[in-house]
Amino acid sequence: MESFTYYTPTKVFFGEDAESHIGKALKEYGVKKVLLHYGGGSIKRIGLYDKVVSQLTKAEIPFVELGGVEPNPKIGLIRKGVELCRAEQVDFLLGVGGGSVCDSCKAIGMGLTTGLDPWEVVSKNIVPEKPFPMGLVLTIAAAGSEMSNSCVITNEETNLKRGCNHDANRPTFAFLNPVNTLSVSKFQTAAGIVDIMMHTMERYLTSDPETPLTDRIAESLLKLVKEYGTRLMQDPQDLEARAQIMWASTLGHNDITGCGRNKTFTAHKIEHDLSGVHDGITHGAGLAVVFPAWVRYEYKNGIDRFYQWAVNIWDAEPSEDKEKAILEGVDHMVAFFRSLDMPVTMKELGVTPEEYEKISKMTTNGDAKPLPSFGKPLTSADIREIYRLAE
Amino acid sequence: MESFTYYTPTKVFFGEDAESHIGKALKEYGVKKVLLHYGGGSIKRIGLYDKVVSQLTKAEIPFVELGGVEPNPKIGLIRKGVELCRAEQVDFLLGVGGGSVCDSCKAIGMGLTTGLDPWEVVSKNIVPEKPFPMGLVLTIAAAGSEMSNSCVITNEETNLKRGCNHDANRPTFAFLNPVNTLSVSKFQTAAGIVDIMMHTMERYLTSDPETPLTDRIAESLLKLVKEYGTRLMQDPQDLEARAQIMWASTLGHNDITGCGRNKTFTAHKIEHDLSGVHDGITHGAGLAVVFPAWVRYEYKNGIDRFYQWAVNIWDAEPSEDKEKAILEGVDHMVAFFRSLDMPVTMKELGVTPEEYEKISKMTTNGDAKPLPSFGKPLTSADIREIYRLAE
Repeated sequence: MESFTYYTPTKVFFGEDAESHIGKALKEYGVKKVLLHYGGGSIKRIGLYDKVVSQLTKAEIPFVELGGVEPNPKIGLIRKGVELCRAEQVDFLLGVGGGSVCDSCKAIGMGLTTGLDPWEVVSKNIVPEKPFPMGLVLTIAAAGSEMSNSCVITNEETNLKRGCNHDANRPTFAFLNPVNTLSVSKFQTAAGIVDIMMHTMERYLTSDPETPLTDRIAESLLKLVKEYGTRLMQDPQDLEARAQIMWASTLGHNDITGCGRNKTFTAHKIEHDLSGVHDGITHGAGLAVVFPAWVRYEYKNGIDRFYQWAVNIWDAEPSEDKEKAILEGVDHMVAFFRSLDMPVTMKELGVTPEEYEKISKMTTNGDAKPLPSFGKPLTSADIREIYRLAE
Repeated sequence: MESFTYYTPTKVFFGEDAESHIGKALKEYGVKKVLLHYGGGSIKRIGLYDKVVSQLTKAEIPFVELGGVEPNPKIGLIRKGVELCRAEQVDFLLGVGGGSVCDSCKAIGMGLTTGLDPWEVVSKNIVPEKPFPMGLVLTIAAAGSEMSNSCVITNEETNLKRGCNHDANRPTFAFLNPVNTLSVSKFQTAAGIVDIMMHTMERYLTSDPETPLTDRIAESLLKLVKEYGTRLMQDPQDLEARAQIMWASTLGHNDITGCGRNKTFTAHKIEHDLSGVHDGITHGAGLAVVFPAWVRYEYKNGIDRFYQWAVNIWDAEPSEDKEKAILEGVDHMVAFFRSLDMPVTMKELGVTPEEYEKISKMTTNGDAKPLPSFGKPLTSADIREIYRLAE
């Protein structure tokens, strides 16, 4: 097993009483003034906004508000957040929402700690010396950002979507109440399930030396998400399934499923530019299209590893013909995505062959930066092959 | 799933280069003066002492030393540590050793932060407001104390062994290099394997509502420890197996295998007084005797849960006769412990029936405090029944 650092400092409050900890946790942490950051009206509709405000009020913690976070969070609003926090002397960011709200908070925090423009910090991979204290009240199980070291934002002027990974991105607190995910639409629930699985599958499918304990934990999590994801599709009000999926979402991206493995997150990066250009593409839906094609393109570079993946996770029939088993595993995965009503082709996603060259070159910075992958780094021509395998 | 809080702030450096991070990590943390705390000569024999000292010297961090930690760490040395740290204005405790050294550091830290006698703090469950910064360079995979919230110490005047659990006990850093465990004796390695499994099995066998993801992770870890524990018994120099067991040891007690479940740790508490009175009893060996007997005594209070345990972890034949399967699971577990050359009876442990009354009453404070368990709390008479089932 290769050397690794494991650091997951986020304090998680999980359960139907999760929000009730907000006031006390922030007070004990010494918070003086909060930025309450969120998206649209859904948190008001489900009564969550009132609960959070009541926690802050009871704890006598003043706050300012900034709503309007969109899916694929935009640098414009993030810059506005940085200015507001500076003007109001905010010392804690409290997001209420999903991964977009969380990443928007992270980017605001990076702007505040570094004193630099947050787009510069993220796109140039500048690592802040310390985190800006923040917490998230989660409303959708998908991104796993609430405990991860990752932040992805979009520059709406250039359509570039860029991410960075470092420990200063790990939130201080996460408040996870599965009840708050009950009203998530079936489509967004399904896209979340794909995203959750992908965080762990991208860690799993790398060319690193063997990591048996990490693998067994990863396989357990993936099989559980498959089982409870199916249950949720049958009954989106199944609270026990919501709870399982929510906890899997957090653990699937906090690194426990990747210890000893190096991340390339190739499919994620290919997808980021699809949804960067097509703002209507939901990240998980884009991954459901890209990832199976990426596996088909790459598996010959690691037959044993892809075989283990196909058999242990996707119930491919064990066989001496490992390639056959791998392709069977891919078919099972695609069938599962279809059972979630996810798109599985570029056409269903609304991306046309005419766009391939432009988008694939965004991902490799015009081939100046080939994309690390399982085998050799991918050029834009490789990425176009992957698109074609997804047609 | 019940509500829970998950908080594992310890930063772990894992791998053959783990010690090389000590100087930088402590420097960045702002450490001014270290107490280097350890047991006997083994860390000098394997060259680890020199490596650690060289890290501190290169980072220009002054240190004072306190060796002499014994298995079942004693309050006398802990009090001495508190005095020394006060006199020398130590602001960081660096343990080099196993669970005993780690718990000795934790108890010194509690004495320093509270200003109270550390025995009083531990035995009365006084929770310090904050942790005292500390790190552990681990030399034996067993206790899992390097990332846990637990601390167990012994009062050598009264033979009482008492523990406490709270977040202020979680170390700041853990440096885990599997190479440092290669020289651990076969007996201590085996006792460690039992201890590791027990931390997760005690979390697993509780009467809480279902926790599928937690269960799957726990089962994965336990089956892996069984597999790699067997490999280690065949070849104690198998570094890959040492690495797997070391990481399993840490994860097995950091709470990831118990999220949503309440801990009673009944067998641990029964064992603590056996090894409190008989200082020669190794904790893991004591557990190998007590735990199977505890399962036999308790299983009727939770047939379904014990059945899942027997089938999913111990490969009992699935059967409509669940009791039969449970007892088969216990037999498989005992056979595994025997394969590790662990004692499995009170006699092998050196505890005689004449001592039963005295020791069992220590565990229940003379029956003033019955011991929480799977079913109703256990009186000293119940504990004596468990002893007898272990004869």
